[in-house]
Amino acid sequence: MLVVGSGLIGTSIALGLVARGYDVVISDSDELAEQTAMAKSGARLWDGHEQVDLVIVATPPSSTANVIRELVATQPNAVITDVSSIKGSIFADLSDLDVQDLSRIVGGHPMAGREVSGAASALSNLFVDRSWVITRNPSTSDEAFSTVVNLASDLGAIPIERTLVEHDRAVALISHTPQVVASVLASQLLEAEERDVELAGQGLRDTIRIASSNADLWGQILAGNATEVARRVTAVAHDLAEVARALLDHDQASVHEALVKGSQGRDRLPGKHGTERKSLATLSVRLDDQPGELARLFAVAAQAGVNLEDVRIDHSLGRMTGLVELTVEPHNVSVLEVALSSADFTVVT
Amino acid sequence: MLVVGSGLIGTSIALGLVARGYDVVISDSDELAEQTAMAKSGARLWDGHEQVDLVIVATPPSSTANVIRELVATQPNAVITDVSSIKGSIFADLSDLDVQDLSRIVGGHPMAGREVSGAASALSNLFVDRSWVITRNPSTSDEAFSTVVNLASDLGAIPIERTLVEHDRAVALISHTPQVVASVLASQLLEAEERDVELAGQGLRDTIRIASSNADLWGQILAGNATEVARRVTAVAHDLAEVARALLDHDQASVHEALVKGSQGRDRLPGKHGTERKSLATLSVRLDDQPGELARLFAVAAQAGVNLEDVRIDHSLGRMTGLVELTVEPHNVSVLEVALSSADFTVVT
Repeated sequence: MLVVGSGLIGTSIALGLVARGYDVVISDSDELAEQTAMAKSGARLWDGHEQVDLVIVATPPSSTANVIRELVATQPNAVITDVSSIKGSIFADLSDLDVQDLSRIVGGHPMAGREVSGAASALSNLFVDRSWVITRNPSTSDEAFSTVVNLASDLGAIPIERTLVEHDRAVALISHTPQVVASVLASQLLEAEERDVELAGQGLRDTIRIASSNADLWGQILAGNATEVARRVTAVAHDLAEVARALLDHDQASVHEALVKGSQGRDRLPGKHGTERKSLATLSVRLDDQPGELARLFAVAAQAGVNLEDVRIDHSLGRMTGLVELTVEPHNVSVLEVALSSADFTVVT
Repeated sequence: MLVVGSGLIGTSIALGLVARGYDVVISDSDELAEQTAMAKSGARLWDGHEQVDLVIVATPPSSTANVIRELVATQPNAVITDVSSIKGSIFADLSDLDVQDLSRIVGGHPMAGREVSGAASALSNLFVDRSWVITRNPSTSDEAFSTVVNLASDLGAIPIERTLVEHDRAVALISHTPQVVASVLASQLLEAEERDVELAGQGLRDTIRIASSNADLWGQILAGNATEVARRVTAVAHDLAEVARALLDHDQASVHEALVKGSQGRDRLPGKHGTERKSLATLSVRLDDQPGELARLFAVAAQAGVNLEDVRIDHSLGRMTGLVELTVEPHNVSVLEVALSSADFTVVT
């Protein structure tokens, strides 16, 4: 197998495939990145000629179609897939480039990432349990499609078939528009007074976390799904302007309705692990910020036989301590509360 | 001391004060909430006449000014403070109501909360290490001001003085506008196809977490800071419309600039504990979703003497496993990596 492009995704794929015993060659136009990816993944360097069965194109989206076009010519027997987070525009580019033999081409989008990028940040298990959307073009053969489904499964991902249009519509909603909104909201902090910003808490921190994503990569992604993202972003802008109008008009019913709709919208998110949302309870514990306190906390929970459904650490301003919020099934609350109190944890209640 | 209003904040204040040995009476117009708060906090029921030194008004913002007006008359010797997340409009309401003796009135805003509400969710340490903004009106006496500073300190909070205008401007930026934006973004999911929503990951989940907040309470908060929030929300709507335009015009430079500004804006958030942002590294570990695995993970970190700066648990779709991202100081990465590998943790790298 050949992986072209040795960023976070390409190197993680190479690493995962090597770990599972595959013979993998890699290639990158940047020699330093290539070296890092080889050292990190254990893959061999591609000599530019060696024929392979499967090529994974993990270059930035703006060059993906061109890279695929070359490979169609130089790798006449290989199935070729890519990993870019836009699908319709890649296929449109391939058509514009008059690429023949589209039967061997399968679109792919492993829905995994990190806020850090580059080969050095690669993880062999980056894709485990993540969705990996796989798309056909009108000519894609069933055999080529199965090859990419198997690739995703081999790396521990969950292969999910979507059409090009379905994919781009979905990611505009759940990924691209949230990215634009988080970035625009975060940019409001740029001109703000220091004494205003310093009051910020966990709510804002979570809301704009993804604003730290790579601007170069995201510029390409958004450009590749421009129409769909623009439509969604325009809808958000319209709804925000409507809330602003309602606020100025003292139209409290409309403001309230917007808040209720937001809460209902959030309720549509899949629950933990995609299973049905359970009713869960939370318990808060205060910790000293020193080695061992978290360990002790979780050890107490484990000894009590309580499974933690979720853990959030809420940082405090100005002092070296933190509040830990534990989410558990309701019947475990009292068990955990007693266990923690007996172990001298200060908070709970 | 008297706490009027036995929701999450009022009951948490009563609980914290009782825990610190103060004699506290409470009152709520809802008898059931009052009973719950008494049971939870150990405070006594106010008989409606008993004179106190300090009154904390923790009613919903829309009734705060009226409650304060009554108390000014019936508690001639008490300092009176409130906890609402809007300050200018409360003071304006007091002026409109022609409340006299403003010298005993001090605005307060403990910047703590939970996504759950009500007396039953109260925590005695809810305010520990949190900012508690304290505002003067033009007549507030130094003595009254000090009383509220001491209240905040007693409950473990960090008292921070701001003017009414400064407070409302700051919370519009860091709290009220993010709430509106998260709600409007989340509401886009309402009409979406199930197969689109089910691809959602941690990024969207974080971005719209606060959309689950209480719509009734937030409707009042936004109404009380309408002008400032409308100004900010309009700016966000404008910037979003601008990105949408740039996307449709293939103006990639403008899209890129919006993303870069977002990243720079996020960099202005205070670091953990309000200290200077350190350069930190992350390490990811995959866990089986069963009691004991988290405990074992943290025990290994503790044994290795590594302090975890942050922990994020990233839920996966469809399978009962999770990815845990540990944030540590860079010099601890290799130490922790070795320790975790030796303890048979599967991921890392």
